[in-house]
Amino acid sequence: MAQTTAIKGSQLAFTNFKASETLRSLAQKPLDLTQDGALTPERINKYVQEACGLKLLYATDRVTDEVMEALAELAAESNAVEKMKSMQAGKVINKIEGFPSEERSVLHTAMRDFFDHPQSARIAKEAAELERAEIDKLKAFLTKISFTDLIMIGIGGSNLGPEAAYRALSYLKKEDRNVHFIANVDPDETARVLENVDLNKALVLVVSKSGGTLETKTNYNFMARKFEQAGLNPKDHFVSITGKGSLLDNKNKFLECFYSWDFIGGRYSTSAMYGAVMLSFALGFDHFWEFLRGAHEMDRTALESDIHKNLPLKLALLGIWNHNFLGCHTLAMIPYSSALSRFPAHIQQLEMESNGKHIDRHGIRVDFETGQIIWGEPGNNAQHSFYQLIHQGTPVIPLEFISFKECQFGDDMVIDGTTNQEKLLANMFAQAIALATGKKDDNPNKQFEGNRPSRIILGEKLTPYSLGTLFSLYENCVAFQGFIWDINSFDQEGVQLGKVLAGRVIKSFEGFRSTGKETGEYPLGDAYLKQLGL
Amino acid sequence: MAQTTAIKGSQLAFTNFKASETLRSLAQKPLDLTQDGALTPERINKYVQEACGLKLLYATDRVTDEVMEALAELAAESNAVEKMKSMQAGKVINKIEGFPSEERSVLHTAMRDFFDHPQSARIAKEAAELERAEIDKLKAFLTKISFTDLIMIGIGGSNLGPEAAYRALSYLKKEDRNVHFIANVDPDETARVLENVDLNKALVLVVSKSGGTLETKTNYNFMARKFEQAGLNPKDHFVSITGKGSLLDNKNKFLECFYSWDFIGGRYSTSAMYGAVMLSFALGFDHFWEFLRGAHEMDRTALESDIHKNLPLKLALLGIWNHNFLGCHTLAMIPYSSALSRFPAHIQQLEMESNGKHIDRHGIRVDFETGQIIWGEPGNNAQHSFYQLIHQGTPVIPLEFISFKECQFGDDMVIDGTTNQEKLLANMFAQAIALATGKKDDNPNKQFEGNRPSRIILGEKLTPYSLGTLFSLYENCVAFQGFIWDINSFDQEGVQLGKVLAGRVIKSFEGFRSTGKETGEYPLGDAYLKQLGL
Repeated sequence: MAQTTAIKGSQLAFTNFKASETLRSLAQKPLDLTQDGALTPERINKYVQEACGLKLLYATDRVTDEVMEALAELAAESNAVEKMKSMQAGKVINKIEGFPSEERSVLHTAMRDFFDHPQSARIAKEAAELERAEIDKLKAFLTKISFTDLIMIGIGGSNLGPEAAYRALSYLKKEDRNVHFIANVDPDETARVLENVDLNKALVLVVSKSGGTLETKTNYNFMARKFEQAGLNPKDHFVSITGKGSLLDNKNKFLECFYSWDFIGGRYSTSAMYGAVMLSFALGFDHFWEFLRGAHEMDRTALESDIHKNLPLKLALLGIWNHNFLGCHTLAMIPYSSALSRFPAHIQQLEMESNGKHIDRHGIRVDFETGQIIWGEPGNNAQHSFYQLIHQGTPVIPLEFISFKECQFGDDMVIDGTTNQEKLLANMFAQAIALATGKKDDNPNKQFEGNRPSRIILGEKLTPYSLGTLFSLYENCVAFQGFIWDINSFDQEGVQLGKVLAGRVIKSFEGFRSTGKETGEYPLGDAYLKQLGL
Repeated sequence: MAQTTAIKGSQLAFTNFKASETLRSLAQKPLDLTQDGALTPERINKYVQEACGLKLLYATDRVTDEVMEALAELAAESNAVEKMKSMQAGKVINKIEGFPSEERSVLHTAMRDFFDHPQSARIAKEAAELERAEIDKLKAFLTKISFTDLIMIGIGGSNLGPEAAYRALSYLKKEDRNVHFIANVDPDETARVLENVDLNKALVLVVSKSGGTLETKTNYNFMARKFEQAGLNPKDHFVSITGKGSLLDNKNKFLECFYSWDFIGGRYSTSAMYGAVMLSFALGFDHFWEFLRGAHEMDRTALESDIHKNLPLKLALLGIWNHNFLGCHTLAMIPYSSALSRFPAHIQQLEMESNGKHIDRHGIRVDFETGQIIWGEPGNNAQHSFYQLIHQGTPVIPLEFISFKECQFGDDMVIDGTTNQEKLLANMFAQAIALATGKKDDNPNKQFEGNRPSRIILGEKLTPYSLGTLFSLYENCVAFQGFIWDINSFDQEGVQLGKVLAGRVIKSFEGFRSTGKETGEYPLGDAYLKQLGL
């Protein structure tokens, strides 16, 4: 699957760690979960780790104490926790040594560093102070508005995390407050929102750090014209979240401008203003504050040097075991919680944009697999969809389940002896067991090979606080994997080429629109226009 | 990635086709799309195939005329088209030779065989007549009702295809008609629907062929009680779609009962009553009829023996080339159309549940990869999410783009020289080019290896007719891949073990609920209950 022609493989840290060698050797004969006595109640109760109210149950991973020791050694050799400390302290870690690169600090953790044990390093403190000022601005802003609907225009990091959080917490939504998301440049997406919103009562939030994102800039202009056509002044309805000095940083055109900074990547920005404005509008500021508190407490956990106390690091290491040593190149993320229906799409971006890299921090082509393919849908739904392949297909797909003891609305009932929430949890536990143990049968079509790894993340209830811990858990897990692989998880140069070529094809369309024929300036673009019948 | 220990590999047809040998040899040195002159306007215009208004553009696949010839040979050797003819004629193809299995015909194509060139085989004709009677029943039913909201209770095939179709066509929705879907047993999913619906005006559609699906049965009971609590009689509001004689086939409890049959798999049933009742309620019957017409015309195309006239077969073969010969084990499905946002989830089920199999039709363990992992999100959104990994990550991920020349609502405008729809299409074309050609750069972080295959499915506009062609295109593509691999794409034994074990864990919950302590009857289940703090 991989193109793994390393240029100078021998220099790659990850490949050459002593722990990597140990793990490669252990992976030759990993624990067989289908063996009699492999999965026991004792094992289920043994492989458990808890932090900030989240429990990780990993008895159904193919690990032993020996594997866990080697993974701890891998964390130590790669200085994973030291690197996390550097990140949270504001060191410039977003860079590629020896080549022009972004050269930035990575300080999303500062966006919630307002609680116990704040960072003492100057840069981190300054970042937190900048954000504190935005929060004060937001609080003042919230007292002045009376809109019922918020249209949030933003794509990628300006959309996925915030929308996942909104769906997760909408049980707390204020009456008469609704949020609509426009990410795509697809005109049908805009039309669908316009069908459902009274513009008179609508606040529009335009989110782009650079101010120049094609889709967001276009949808901003599109929507501003719609307001004008309705006899409304966009200035009375539009707010922006952007970098200082961008085209969107303009109080003549916006009711308010909130700021983001170059030390916060889009995909790490739900706890910054990207999430703050929308969630505070929809749920109230106090709920957003609890989200921050949860995220901060998990950030603190990520500084623990013992892997058995550091939940994000543990999760990162289990992922690396499956991915780099057992050869499983995708991860199915299955929340047994309908409220988390968009959470896999957020984690998909977080992981794949951060760690989908082919060079290490020194510009050397890696000779191992980096970021994996994350995908998923909620369970039980997934059981009635793609689980056939997970149980009996040819690839082995590890699963990460997420669920909660209690439901959100509290509107449950006992049917045939159990509540719906209990049935939901029972299904998840049963899947972990079934995937691990498999089942022998004389009919090959009823045979289950088993030995499919999975793990469970279990919380009490999906609340702003626990959602904050989940966001931080994965942000820090992804960072740890990048630290261990020695790659830069914080840039995204891989999206640039497509943008440049899109600009050229747009020019082809523009040329055709103004002259009625091909311009000849970009023959490949023209060829596709021809296929459209232009 | 695969567990490919074949038991009797030498007997496996797919492995031993002469064409497979040719393709393995061609795959040693496949076309390099990054070479100068590899991707040209001529190539873009050459590798095009059209059927029923859909164009497949596959210049950015790593194929040559030689590869296409070998793929045609593979289709011939595997008798793919003959098997399709047998399927559509109603032969019993859902079976495993020599072992107890479902032993059924596979006749979803009969559910839309009401137009030109109907099947003449008796079994297929009878199936179409059965469905025609249901359609007449549905038409009569539609004239008698005055509900504004439809709550559709069903999971898996009873949810994913219908919901994807509803989202795709909701631009045609009648005013004051809304549809809500409840799939999961999660009580928060039910609560969220109840928040938004006036039960007085709501029709509830309960969909389960067996009548015994845990989630659907539970949600049916849950919702019936909610109606009773609101002083309403469920019988006046509930209709079912089920198999004759099931627990849901009861006119004393349902306003109407529509039928499905054992020759229609859930995932193949959107054109049967599963889609018919809901889509006709929401959009009107005539639109649903156009959906059927589109699907039927693509079914006819699937009977063409020339691969260059048979679009579903061509698509199947290109997938097999990437999957079995170039070693790409996932497929990202990226609709550049927000209306198709749930289409990838439907195709994910369709492919992975159909072809996620480890044995062939004779019960022999396969020694090659069968069903692949399908996942995806709409573009442009995906460009700002996981495309980083697709361009610069370590695995090679083929992409299948779907898009349309025109938008649905017609509410577009020219901004900076082009419409939004043009910008959307431009981005898709640019991605196909960028992924194929890559880009050299002295800075390794700005280097793009390229040679990433993709293809484009292009239609005029997403309408009921074109959506019908798309549904059929993929249903037939999946069937063709199964025919070529010689597996049974129409059962789903792999979901059974999880159901059985879920029943046992539910018993653990029930025991705990009634006695306040562990029952000891299922120690693994009890261990997980203990982790919940029970």
